[in-house]
Amino acid sequence: MQFADGRTEMEKTYRILFKTEQGIDQSIDASPGESLPEAARRAGIALDAPCGGNGTCGKCRVRVLNGSVAGGQSRHITPQEFNDGWRLACISSVCSDAAILVPETAGAYECQIRAGGKDSTGENIIFQKLQTELTGTGIDSGIKIVKAELEEPSPDNPMADRERLLRRLAELTHIPQQDMTLSALRKLPSVLRVNNFSVYCVLRLQAECCSVIDIFPGTGDMPVIAGLAADIGTTTVSAMLVDLANGNVLAFGSAGNGQIRYGADVISRIIASSVPAKDSAQSGLEQMRLAVTAECITPLIARICETAAISAEHIYRAAIAANTTMTHLFMGVDPAYLRLEPYTPAFFESGTLRGADIGLPLHPDTEAVIAPAIGSYVGGDITAGVYASSIFSQPEISLLVDLGTNGELVLGNAEFLMSCACSAGPAFEGGDISCGMRATDGAIEACTIDPETMEPAITVIGEAGLAKGLCGSGLIDLVGELFRCGIINAKGKIIKDGKRIRRDDNAAYIIAFTDEAAGGREISITETDIDNFIRAKGAIFSAIQTMLAALDFDIGMIDNVFIAGGIGSGINIRQAVRIGMLPNISPEKYRYIGNSSLHGAYAMLVSKEAALKIEKIGRDMTYIELSTHPGYMDELIAACFLPHTNGGLFENIE
Amino acid sequence: MQFADGRTEMEKTYRILFKTEQGIDQSIDASPGESLPEAARRAGIALDAPCGGNGTCGKCRVRVLNGSVAGGQSRHITPQEFNDGWRLACISSVCSDAAILVPETAGAYECQIRAGGKDSTGENIIFQKLQTELTGTGIDSGIKIVKAELEEPSPDNPMADRERLLRRLAELTHIPQQDMTLSALRKLPSVLRVNNFSVYCVLRLQAECCSVIDIFPGTGDMPVIAGLAADIGTTTVSAMLVDLANGNVLAFGSAGNGQIRYGADVISRIIASSVPAKDSAQSGLEQMRLAVTAECITPLIARICETAAISAEHIYRAAIAANTTMTHLFMGVDPAYLRLEPYTPAFFESGTLRGADIGLPLHPDTEAVIAPAIGSYVGGDITAGVYASSIFSQPEISLLVDLGTNGELVLGNAEFLMSCACSAGPAFEGGDISCGMRATDGAIEACTIDPETMEPAITVIGEAGLAKGLCGSGLIDLVGELFRCGIINAKGKIIKDGKRIRRDDNAAYIIAFTDEAAGGREISITETDIDNFIRAKGAIFSAIQTMLAALDFDIGMIDNVFIAGGIGSGINIRQAVRIGMLPNISPEKYRYIGNSSLHGAYAMLVSKEAALKIEKIGRDMTYIELSTHPGYMDELIAACFLPHTNGGLFENIE
Repeated sequence: MQFADGRTEMEKTYRILFKTEQGIDQSIDASPGESLPEAARRAGIALDAPCGGNGTCGKCRVRVLNGSVAGGQSRHITPQEFNDGWRLACISSVCSDAAILVPETAGAYECQIRAGGKDSTGENIIFQKLQTELTGTGIDSGIKIVKAELEEPSPDNPMADRERLLRRLAELTHIPQQDMTLSALRKLPSVLRVNNFSVYCVLRLQAECCSVIDIFPGTGDMPVIAGLAADIGTTTVSAMLVDLANGNVLAFGSAGNGQIRYGADVISRIIASSVPAKDSAQSGLEQMRLAVTAECITPLIARICETAAISAEHIYRAAIAANTTMTHLFMGVDPAYLRLEPYTPAFFESGTLRGADIGLPLHPDTEAVIAPAIGSYVGGDITAGVYASSIFSQPEISLLVDLGTNGELVLGNAEFLMSCACSAGPAFEGGDISCGMRATDGAIEACTIDPETMEPAITVIGEAGLAKGLCGSGLIDLVGELFRCGIINAKGKIIKDGKRIRRDDNAAYIIAFTDEAAGGREISITETDIDNFIRAKGAIFSAIQTMLAALDFDIGMIDNVFIAGGIGSGINIRQAVRIGMLPNISPEKYRYIGNSSLHGAYAMLVSKEAALKIEKIGRDMTYIELSTHPGYMDELIAACFLPHTNGGLFENIE
Repeated sequence: MQFADGRTEMEKTYRILFKTEQGIDQSIDASPGESLPEAARRAGIALDAPCGGNGTCGKCRVRVLNGSVAGGQSRHITPQEFNDGWRLACISSVCSDAAILVPETAGAYECQIRAGGKDSTGENIIFQKLQTELTGTGIDSGIKIVKAELEEPSPDNPMADRERLLRRLAELTHIPQQDMTLSALRKLPSVLRVNNFSVYCVLRLQAECCSVIDIFPGTGDMPVIAGLAADIGTTTVSAMLVDLANGNVLAFGSAGNGQIRYGADVISRIIASSVPAKDSAQSGLEQMRLAVTAECITPLIARICETAAISAEHIYRAAIAANTTMTHLFMGVDPAYLRLEPYTPAFFESGTLRGADIGLPLHPDTEAVIAPAIGSYVGGDITAGVYASSIFSQPEISLLVDLGTNGELVLGNAEFLMSCACSAGPAFEGGDISCGMRATDGAIEACTIDPETMEPAITVIGEAGLAKGLCGSGLIDLVGELFRCGIINAKGKIIKDGKRIRRDDNAAYIIAFTDEAAGGREISITETDIDNFIRAKGAIFSAIQTMLAALDFDIGMIDNVFIAGGIGSGINIRQAVRIGMLPNISPEKYRYIGNSSLHGAYAMLVSKEAALKIEKIGRDMTYIELSTHPGYMDELIAACFLPHTNGGLFENIE
């Protein structure tokens, strides 16, 4: 920093007002040269940047309403749009006072909160079954609340408060060893005296020891003891607030992972985390940890707690499932060696963590359990998902396909479990696709095309009905329909012409013209988009083929296919099979199970036995590394066609 | 706060320079009206205020060298002294720029640090015996350091770092269950790769589980694993830094308890802790917690660690002994009910605490154990002291007398232990005595008086040789000699005249004239001082008599008397018996054991078995409440003479 002459210049700041489409206005003082995403972050508004902020993905389009910004010009912005004030935020910086519109499509913090945990219908059937199994005969979270009524101290009974309470709890719980945390002890003297030594005690029960972790005056209704189950995805974090007395879901919510501004995939995150701390700046690792905790999970917890009218301090147990990179970053453990040969994680199992250690606003003595990883690219989201799908306990052979930025697959039954990971890229979550977006309001989640007229019929998420972009399931439908109608060929090239086809150096099919779309921006799919998509679906299918070959199995031996992952309310299986993404077996064998990682986390939260089973799943599951597996590259090349170079694999499809 | 008009006035600050006799200069900006002790505290200089800052004890005399302060006039300051700039700091406040001399006698933070734990000779004999017993056959602190050499990861051996290490440790320790703290896990990936997967691991061993709490590259010598033993006294905090590999004391130090500015005794501390948090100010409880932790123990730890050239982060276990009020305040637990009938502590036993929870700069996963209390006024300092004196394991009947602001007594043997507490007042620690001071450099620790000439011969602590005041042991000697020489009578009144006697409304014996004393301030003992002292010694003796009577014992049944407490290098037993403070039994039965509380804390630190025994001592010991015990008041009145109204108890003394 220069102080002598440059001071006046350095200290000049500008007022930047961010306006969101949801009607939120936030203004902040920013120094000249500060990047727009950084200023927005400080204002509490996160911008999406799947490409890591290098201006290539075009997701962070914002509009300058007043004043100006420096930079922001890109091939994603037409000259007319540029004149209208549109800029790419990630390559823009502050140079004057400005008012900036942040459209919904650019916001990374799309957040959906629902009371009562009503997820999508498809998810609820599977989840309700799991919930009934785990909570039907009483829940086993290790957290319990009891009412204790104590004799008041007197000169003849001068026992200290702590020992007085622990002695009573030994009688009530029949556990001989009793302990109390410091935070509970600090509350004890005053709480005991609110209501004549009658108190509610929150207990952590272990085999040999019962520990008092919180205490309340024994007046009125029994306080709610809450638990938090969370799935930390590379793109989206989802969380459930659970009543630990009965396992009921009190609220559900999701939010964009705050790390998104460092890039869409785990590799960009690992690279970003490797920046050492310098001067007063935090290390990259600490920045990444805070981006997912303080910036994302903490506000998400606040929101679901508000919905359920519960204090976050009353969350006494947490269970978290995430891929291996996310667990490392969440816990502040260096993930560098995940991407360096021989790809060694710092840990498979985290051990038990305390709320105070992981930096979340839970009760400080919250016990946090993390689903175990089995390798650098098959993480706790998969071990938790294997539990939620119950494939580990069934005699039938099942395939679990988790569709996310990384595709993970598990094949197995009660006898064996084999897993692998493939880099599908961000297409299924709306990345790498010019009009791609996440499965939130305004996303086209399904479509059909009339083979005659080439006119689309679309289904859009949300009540407004106007489309803003394409989410993963809509994309599968669209490519399936374009192929079924002969609009594109096996290589994904557009081979028909018409009103909805635009021919230029990157030919496109237009799903919604400017006047049909929200925000007046046409929605289309280009040949480049289709190419990116074909590589994603090819990665999935070739991984399945490679696993089957490794076991000397054929497709017919698969009894069930469970599809998991955050792609809207579920994909159209017929379309996914038509394009050669999923194997050509009877559609009845397919089942969409939603966010199985979150559901596995729920299981770990409400059942210590389930947590132990997930640990065992992690220890027993084998892993094949595709990148070095003989034959994988050939399989991948063969799968990058619609549906496949071996048409025999996809015969008899309508 | 008023902003509109008063602002300029409010914002005016003055520069206050504090100069200590040790040559430390600290200056600070202070607002008009800020109290001098508060400004000094902010400048890192603590002033003694045994009376709680109400101007009555006269300990905090400072001298204004330049500028001026408001207030500060007191009966402790002569008009000449006032003209020379002397003020009582506790009733002075800032009103202009000023330079202020803080004499050594006014500083609360007299700090003595020694490498190798060389305490006083008297202490070392007892302590060395304890140390040999506890460490002779290897130490059992539960903290161990081992070297582990691991196979490096490879594509054929892709085990994660944590599991790789834990598997090896299971082989090395033969403990099946292994765990690792988050702080160790965060260091793991990089530390493993410094020296080819060879590492030193700091382990916490428990019966069923071995936990890795720290990790270092396996190069060079094995790192030192350190432990901290501390005695938190109402007036002084003492601490030892211990090598947990062998039990050796690496450094010893002591510091004034930072709470001293809130008053000398535990009652003033409890009252000060009851102030609720208001606006931005911390609660009284939090202020008291910080006064003993952040302001006192934290710098003390820094200094002993510097002496031993060890990082405080390498302290992995801590053991603390303190009276009941001090443990409450140290842990941040409300002590209010200690002084309200029926005098109920919040806890007897603390349970196990973590370094991160107690706010000390130790390793965050340090396990801190606290010696158990048995009542509001018999605390962990006594249960630890009973262990250190080994009276709990001997067939002989012993009496333990802990001489401090509160006197605590234990009578017992391997069969029974009985305790009581009496309020001796601060006389033994130099409070309530006009020229009293703690047993630090310049204190008269012993004296004799020639019966003919009434001239004293004094022994002064420290190399300088010039006396500054009287510490507890010097005071006992002085009163004993005054009584032996017939200068004072049984009621403590001065009944002779001479060169050293000054007659005014508070007659005094002058031990050192102005030209014989350091700092040119005469040292004397007044009749008021003697009266305060007689009440202190009477409290001790009457407590002993009451305990004996309760058991139907007589003095002759006592086999040993152990004297503990921070009164210099030990008191002259003959003098203490002569004045009727201690029972008239053979001097050979007396033994000064020094800071038995600290030694008991050492035992808890290096031996988990000793910690369990101290817990058992706490559970087994009975307590008699003197204030309500029949006969105690009569005993007290009878003991407030020299030596006693019942002269028969003190026959045959030379």
